[in-house]
Amino acid sequence: MIVVLRKGASQATIDRVVRRIEELGLKAHIIVGTERTVVAAVGDERHRSREALESIDDVEKVVPILAPYKVASKEARSEPTVVKVLDLVIGGGNVGVIAGPCSVESEAQILESAQKVKAAGARGLRGGAFKPRTSPYSFQGMKEEGLKLLAAAREVTGLAIVTEVMTPQHVDLICQYTDILQIGARNMQNYHLLQAVGETRTPVLLKRGPSATIEEFLLAAEYILDQGNAQVILCERGVRTFENHTRFTLPLATVPYLHQRTHLPVVVDPSHGTGIASLVPSMSAASIAAGADGLIIEVHPDPSQAMSDGSQSLTPAAFQEMMDLCRRVAGAMGVTMA
Amino acid sequence: MIVVLRKGASQATIDRVVRRIEELGLKAHIIVGTERTVVAAVGDERHRSREALESIDDVEKVVPILAPYKVASKEARSEPTVVKVLDLVIGGGNVGVIAGPCSVESEAQILESAQKVKAAGARGLRGGAFKPRTSPYSFQGMKEEGLKLLAAAREVTGLAIVTEVMTPQHVDLICQYTDILQIGARNMQNYHLLQAVGETRTPVLLKRGPSATIEEFLLAAEYILDQGNAQVILCERGVRTFENHTRFTLPLATVPYLHQRTHLPVVVDPSHGTGIASLVPSMSAASIAAGADGLIIEVHPDPSQAMSDGSQSLTPAAFQEMMDLCRRVAGAMGVTMA
Amino acid sequence: MIVVLRKGASQATIDRVVRRIEELGLKAHIIVGTERTVVAAVGDERHRSREALESIDDVEKVVPILAPYKVASKEARSEPTVVKVLDLVIGGGNVGVIAGPCSVESEAQILESAQKVKAAGARGLRGGAFKPRTSPYSFQGMKEEGLKLLAAAREVTGLAIVTEVMTPQHVDLICQYTDILQIGARNMQNYHLLQAVGETRTPVLLKRGPSATIEEFLLAAEYILDQGNAQVILCERGVRTFENHTRFTLPLATVPYLHQRTHLPVVVDPSHGTGIASLVPSMSAASIAAGADGLIIEVHPDPSQAMSDGSQSLTPAAFQEMMDLCRRVAGAMGVTMA
Amino acid sequence: MIVVLRKGASQATIDRVVRRIEELGLKAHIIVGTERTVVAAVGDERHRSREALESIDDVEKVVPILAPYKVASKEARSEPTVVKVLDLVIGGGNVGVIAGPCSVESEAQILESAQKVKAAGARGLRGGAFKPRTSPYSFQGMKEEGLKLLAAAREVTGLAIVTEVMTPQHVDLICQYTDILQIGARNMQNYHLLQAVGETRTPVLLKRGPSATIEEFLLAAEYILDQGNAQVILCERGVRTFENHTRFTLPLATVPYLHQRTHLPVVVDPSHGTGIASLVPSMSAASIAAGADGLIIEVHPDPSQAMSDGSQSLTPAAFQEMMDLCRRVAGAMGVTMA
Repeated sequence: MIVVLRKGASQATIDRVVRRIEELGLKAHIIVGTERTVVAAVGDERHRSREALESIDDVEKVVPILAPYKVASKEARSEPTVVKVLDLVIGGGNVGVIAGPCSVESEAQILESAQKVKAAGARGLRGGAFKPRTSPYSFQGMKEEGLKLLAAAREVTGLAIVTEVMTPQHVDLICQYTDILQIGARNMQNYHLLQAVGETRTPVLLKRGPSATIEEFLLAAEYILDQGNAQVILCERGVRTFENHTRFTLPLATVPYLHQRTHLPVVVDPSHGTGIASLVPSMSAASIAAGADGLIIEVHPDPSQAMSDGSQSLTPAAFQEMMDLCRRVAGAMGVTMA
Repeated sequence: MIVVLRKGASQATIDRVVRRIEELGLKAHIIVGTERTVVAAVGDERHRSREALESIDDVEKVVPILAPYKVASKEARSEPTVVKVLDLVIGGGNVGVIAGPCSVESEAQILESAQKVKAAGARGLRGGAFKPRTSPYSFQGMKEEGLKLLAAAREVTGLAIVTEVMTPQHVDLICQYTDILQIGARNMQNYHLLQAVGETRTPVLLKRGPSATIEEFLLAAEYILDQGNAQVILCERGVRTFENHTRFTLPLATVPYLHQRTHLPVVVDPSHGTGIASLVPSMSAASIAAGADGLIIEVHPDPSQAMSDGSQSLTPAAFQEMMDLCRRVAGAMGVTMA
Repeated sequence: MIVVLRKGASQATIDRVVRRIEELGLKAHIIVGTERTVVAAVGDERHRSREALESIDDVEKVVPILAPYKVASKEARSEPTVVKVLDLVIGGGNVGVIAGPCSVESEAQILESAQKVKAAGARGLRGGAFKPRTSPYSFQGMKEEGLKLLAAAREVTGLAIVTEVMTPQHVDLICQYTDILQIGARNMQNYHLLQAVGETRTPVLLKRGPSATIEEFLLAAEYILDQGNAQVILCERGVRTFENHTRFTLPLATVPYLHQRTHLPVVVDPSHGTGIASLVPSMSAASIAAGADGLIIEVHPDPSQAMSDGSQSLTPAAFQEMMDLCRRVAGAMGVTMA
Repeated sequence: MIVVLRKGASQATIDRVVRRIEELGLKAHIIVGTERTVVAAVGDERHRSREALESIDDVEKVVPILAPYKVASKEARSEPTVVKVLDLVIGGGNVGVIAGPCSVESEAQILESAQKVKAAGARGLRGGAFKPRTSPYSFQGMKEEGLKLLAAAREVTGLAIVTEVMTPQHVDLICQYTDILQIGARNMQNYHLLQAVGETRTPVLLKRGPSATIEEFLLAAEYILDQGNAQVILCERGVRTFENHTRFTLPLATVPYLHQRTHLPVVVDPSHGTGIASLVPSMSAASIAAGADGLIIEVHPDPSQAMSDGSQSLTPAAFQEMMDLCRRVAGAMGVTMA
């Protein structure tokens, strides 16, 4: 890291900084500039406390050089990670599509959803059984009953199941039914939960928190990888900004940016990313053009009757049309899509 | 709620909206404007799905009228909630100050911290034993050993202990040692955790998530209140914005705004809110002038040796000076401060 | 608009609101709910002061119903506006590409740029002669000399010229040389400038301000349209958010969202939107998949020697490759691209 | 500046970076780390193009060391700048208050406003004659007639006049009537306007743009200072963030942060910063506690009849009460307030 001193910092300050750098096990390297002195700290800075150096008087700022994530980085593994569950393939030139309702609401609803999304080309089925809801008074999901209905839908369709886990106590239960564990955006920095799913060998779809930086996002993945679970799928689902015409702002540059830094696959959730069903097809096509390795899309047999997220759910017919468009774009991009 | 239809929406659409409103148990009221028709849905809309209505073709938007929180609202209780633990009093004209290091690091460190902050006027001691850290490679806290040191510091100083709980499994353990349970910003929407602390009768300091709206913040409090725990302290600790000269942006207007809407007390954390020790005194004084019911401040005997958050920690001497300033401002505001 | 009263608002308050609504020339319509009374104000609310109503005691909020822009709205004109200058066609199923350096630096530089981007398929040439720079100490452009070089490049290549105008006094001068006037993001709400370009009959490329809402963006266009200049191209160039890994956050959902609300064409500037040359090709392809009517791209013969924006400028070879990719995506989308 | 190379960057890349640094007139200093090589560029980097270096292959990032503003910096002048016009004193331990309506609407309105705000302790009168309005259909101000009414109000009350200038052509005219030129937030980066007011010797109140960083804000001031006008007052008026319960987010930490970096005085506008009249008194008191050198407050004889900004305007009575509160806080802070 680079320690920038204030103009006119004394030799005593420089000495103190050098001493502290050496106490941290790093090597100090002083550069006297025309207006400022900077001290470079050479060595593996990742376990060290940058903040401690910043608290020294006349230190103006400390600039880290190394990215703090390791296992997730492209330097640790140059080959792309490919996650393959049943017929769903995500990564390495394969675009996998996961679709289905926000919540599992009934046997008929989830079965119809599964059959329709499969017909259109989805290879994964999403559906919430344990639902994180902003209000305690909103529908909280069908819980284990919902998991059973998802498993039944897999039985019939062969679709891989993706469902959310909200708390470490539920990990074992949900692993019995699901193919991919979803960590929701609100829980991206729920570290006990990340460790708990990291201890399983079930693939994890990790959603970006609505105000998470890329570094925080990759460090959240690192919590999972660090426990030995290598099957992590990153999911961009929109960030919170001043824009209020959409539910979130969907920053697709995340996709190529992540591909430059990590071997993990990146999927996009344009349903939450926009919150408006009529924008989902365009943003799905754009995601694929941006290089996404997959999509996760909310589809409901009748959005106007949905118990949650109706306004951002596609009808099966609209989803079919969207998939046709996406397949053409995937073709243009030279990637494989079911 | 108010359902706004697109220009030229047909009578069939209007009928469909009315029918759906009635299915939701509300009463529809049609207003034909010069350019748009709007349908008002009269009744308790809080349990209803606004999104379902939005998914109807030719519905442009749905505007909710009622705030979705109830127990937290001023309409439910007009008297301010006062949280009182040992000598720490927060709310109702009392400004309570909680101070101490980011992490408990050793017996000497926490004891010295406790004695110094008490001497300056703090009545609560903060200190992390279980630490949520962005990187899995950073110091994660002393865990139960840290809790014991906090309790020992209380023994000596009489300060009320405030420490963070990160996962439902730890609630019972931490309740044995602490006086106030802290929910960190990253966990503001960790609903199982909110419910778990809601089931205790230990007061809860709930930090605002860095991208949480006021409505989401109050609904998070509502999850706790809804379980029967009435002792919730709201804590503004800064939000994430484009500003990068400070760690977060500290929006003090939250204080009077919340006071207009809720009876719960509001404290401010200017240490995380700015991330820069030299800004903390000014922002502490400003918080009290804005009407805050308390402060939570990071103080470390030697910030340059801190294992976390050194750059935003005050020295004991700087904290003493800050408290003198704050006491003068509290006097000007006509509120009580120890 | 809808005026929402506080719980327990008195009849006197209701009467005052009704009276004020009538003074504004609107018709009041009272709806008594279970918890709140709301008053709908029927009529053309666009010239009225919503804020005046909000200042009445016990008025909780005022919700506008009508979008405040008119001429820009799809309701005013359902056919898409197509801007056609020389061989550059933007809108109505045509994707027009404008490319070139950030600044005009020399005759050789602008000519080489023009020839290379034309060969790759661009039909417009961008290049700044008057440069808005964040620092007064940065290169401010070649001014009129730069305009002459742009016109010379048009002479040779037939490309349509796009260059920025920063102040009303320069409008006449720049119109003598350019085919399209660019209003930069910093000037999106420089109303005297908008009116000045509105008085010309030269097409205007209006960049979205980095924190402008969609409504503010369309109202800025409305300032131009209102003066009689119908040839306005909207340009999404990224917004300012907490994300700092890219220069701005590029929200492509703006493209289909705007297409639902306005007949004006929408182009995207992924160079400023990301600030990183290696992300530009992906985001260009994504823009076209999102439905953009054009692109504006920074290309420099040697980015490492550029006097401004080198880090986000493509080399001619990279631009050529990008155009090939974009053409394939345009084909998949069924739109025309040169 | 510090040039960080990618892991494994070749000697040829290092050589190219060193050569480019030397071409820029700086001295290169190579530091070989355990994982990365970094090259420090020593010398005055402020006129150099950081972006050009970033465009070199295998350069990961370039970190600037020196702040790009000069005349505005505390290093250029350690004494605080004090702006004194008539009885209004801003800076150097003096809190000056400017108050008045958003727009000048009539002689009676501006005179009544002036007399009431003076009685409460204001020493400056604000009032818009040329109004930047988001919509072309909104009231645009009384123009020169409004300026005359402001001057008449000064005649009667002795208050210093503060009014906005929107375009370079109006600078001479407005200087004939006003004591302080206001640059609105929308025009913070309207460089021709900044230069035009920089050429006058009339003090300038420069509002921060809603998404301007501190560096951009100080560089905007630098444009004015660079023309020889030393009397610049910085004004924090809120930034645009995801928060939507207030009109903007008012980040008061700006005040002490700016005081650490610049000698220019800093005032706060809590009227625009919150957009809600009932929050203005608390935020005014908080601004003074944060160290503000002044306030600018919207006051209207009858906010419900205001032609603009009614919802954020105080009544004269509320303003009087606010001033009493602020005076007590100023006393606690040891600063002078009229």
